[in-house]
Amino acid sequence: MGKVERVGISLESELLCAFDKVIAGQGYQNRSEAVRDLIRDKLSQRRLANPKTNAIAAVCLVYNHHSTKLLQKLASLQHCHHLHTIASMHIHLDRHDCLEIVTLKGKVSQINKMADEIVSLKGVKLGKVNLVTTENDKT
Amino acid sequence: MGKVERVGISLESELLCAFDKVIAGQGYQNRSEAVRDLIRDKLSQRRLANPKTNAIAAVCLVYNHHSTKLLQKLASLQHCHHLHTIASMHIHLDRHDCLEIVTLKGKVSQINKMADEIVSLKGVKLGKVNLVTTENDKT
Amino acid sequence: MGKVERVGISLESELLCAFDKVIAGQGYQNRSEAVRDLIRDKLSQRRLANPKTNAIAAVCLVYNHHSTKLLQKLASLQHCHHLHTIASMHIHLDRHDCLEIVTLKGKVSQINKMADEIVSLKGVKLGKVNLVTTENDKT
Amino acid sequence: MGKVERVGISLESELLCAFDKVIAGQGYQNRSEAVRDLIRDKLSQRRLANPKTNAIAAVCLVYNHHSTKLLQKLASLQHCHHLHTIASMHIHLDRHDCLEIVTLKGKVSQINKMADEIVSLKGVKLGKVNLVTTENDKT
Repeated sequence: MGKVERVGISLESELLCAFDKVIAGQGYQNRSEAVRDLIRDKLSQRRLANPKTNAIAAVCLVYNHHSTKLLQKLASLQHCHHLHTIASMHIHLDRHDCLEIVTLKGKVSQINKMADEIVSLKGVKLGKVNLVTTENDKT
Repeated sequence: MGKVERVGISLESELLCAFDKVIAGQGYQNRSEAVRDLIRDKLSQRRLANPKTNAIAAVCLVYNHHSTKLLQKLASLQHCHHLHTIASMHIHLDRHDCLEIVTLKGKVSQINKMADEIVSLKGVKLGKVNLVTTENDKT
Repeated sequence: MGKVERVGISLESELLCAFDKVIAGQGYQNRSEAVRDLIRDKLSQRRLANPKTNAIAAVCLVYNHHSTKLLQKLASLQHCHHLHTIASMHIHLDRHDCLEIVTLKGKVSQINKMADEIVSLKGVKLGKVNLVTTENDKT
Repeated sequence: MGKVERVGISLESELLCAFDKVIAGQGYQNRSEAVRDLIRDKLSQRRLANPKTNAIAAVCLVYNHHSTKLLQKLASLQHCHHLHTIASMHIHLDRHDCLEIVTLKGKVSQINKMADEIVSLKGVKLGKVNLVTTENDKT
């Protein structure tokens, strides 16, 4: 955390009061932290709307564990989209299904294109992608 | 606009700088207005997540204009969900399709239930609901 | 509605049964209509993800009715983004606030850019955009 | 994968043609798999809209690695919401930030409540929750 500045914000008492109530309910210790989170969230959404932004993706896949060739195909997809896999985690859901969480690095556009192709693989029942950027990315 | 208060918010210079750049690009004249919008948006999302909140809905329907009985069915759906229609607007999209925007008042849960039933009507090709709450609703 | 085809889809009994139950609850008269809606929705999302797609937007604005110059600014924004306004509808929300629904035509990118600028206008408390495409747009 | 049924769906040639083009672009080998995915996705969204549904959550947190007490607080939050942690994965993002992916099991409402509290913790810069249900959950 670098240099900290203090800025003044003016807003209607009514709006401030409603905000204070909501953030207290969420567990925030102070208003600054809550406003910082709103700002970070907005900046993050902006960056991720740009296909060229560098991002980290947590790809969550639910698949039938009998689809033995799936992880190989997944690996080859990452390869052909020039994505770099960081790590993965495998979770047993029930008798039939597994949840695989693969984290990878790349441009937003490459990640989304790959996500499309993953979901279309036979055996993949559900695929969801969570994207995050690091705070220091250029906007 | 009621009484206005001024509060201090502390945040990292880097975060502030990125925020200022983004909101300038959007056309904001000052930081307070941008922060107020973030707060209003958060409060609005919270309220709309509660099925009991009173809301105004703009229901956008794309439908085939040959589906002549659709608007009657729509009216009867509103009636059976105890929703109050405020106004509607009809737009010609192309040779086949119309866009109807119906604004109505009711609880979030009633509106969502009705939206489900509207989309399932034969002839409706697309149905989207935009919900807004007024600032003075209790959270 | 042009020529109709009939295609066969194979799926697990369990999945089919769960689907039939959900769509019956929504009010669908038959399975084909429900599948058509899923397909239309997917195609529509795809098209709208492309910034160059022609779309119709229903822009919902909540604003303070004392912001008398807002509609002029709105008009000039539409002009500078080469958007074509089709129609608009004005609704009285409460003592302070109005809901204005403006429908306009243009490329997705132009509409989104304008939406950003609208929300940043002083007096606009909330701005939401609903985009629709007509079925005949090229994918 | 249990017993498989084959059902007939009727739809306009034009809609079918546009669908076939999109799914081929995504990499689908056949139409049935694409329709199954649309159905699974719809069912999953429905289930997750119900606060009482049992779900698996992949909680993605970006936080400052100097926030040493964060993981302890995270553990105590899970405890107080009666959530069961399955596994977690830790990834180094840059000099300051870490990405922690925690998978846990619980009701949708408990997971969302906890996610709120996590994001409000000092040191957490971003928190996103991906929810999945297993196919065999009751709708």
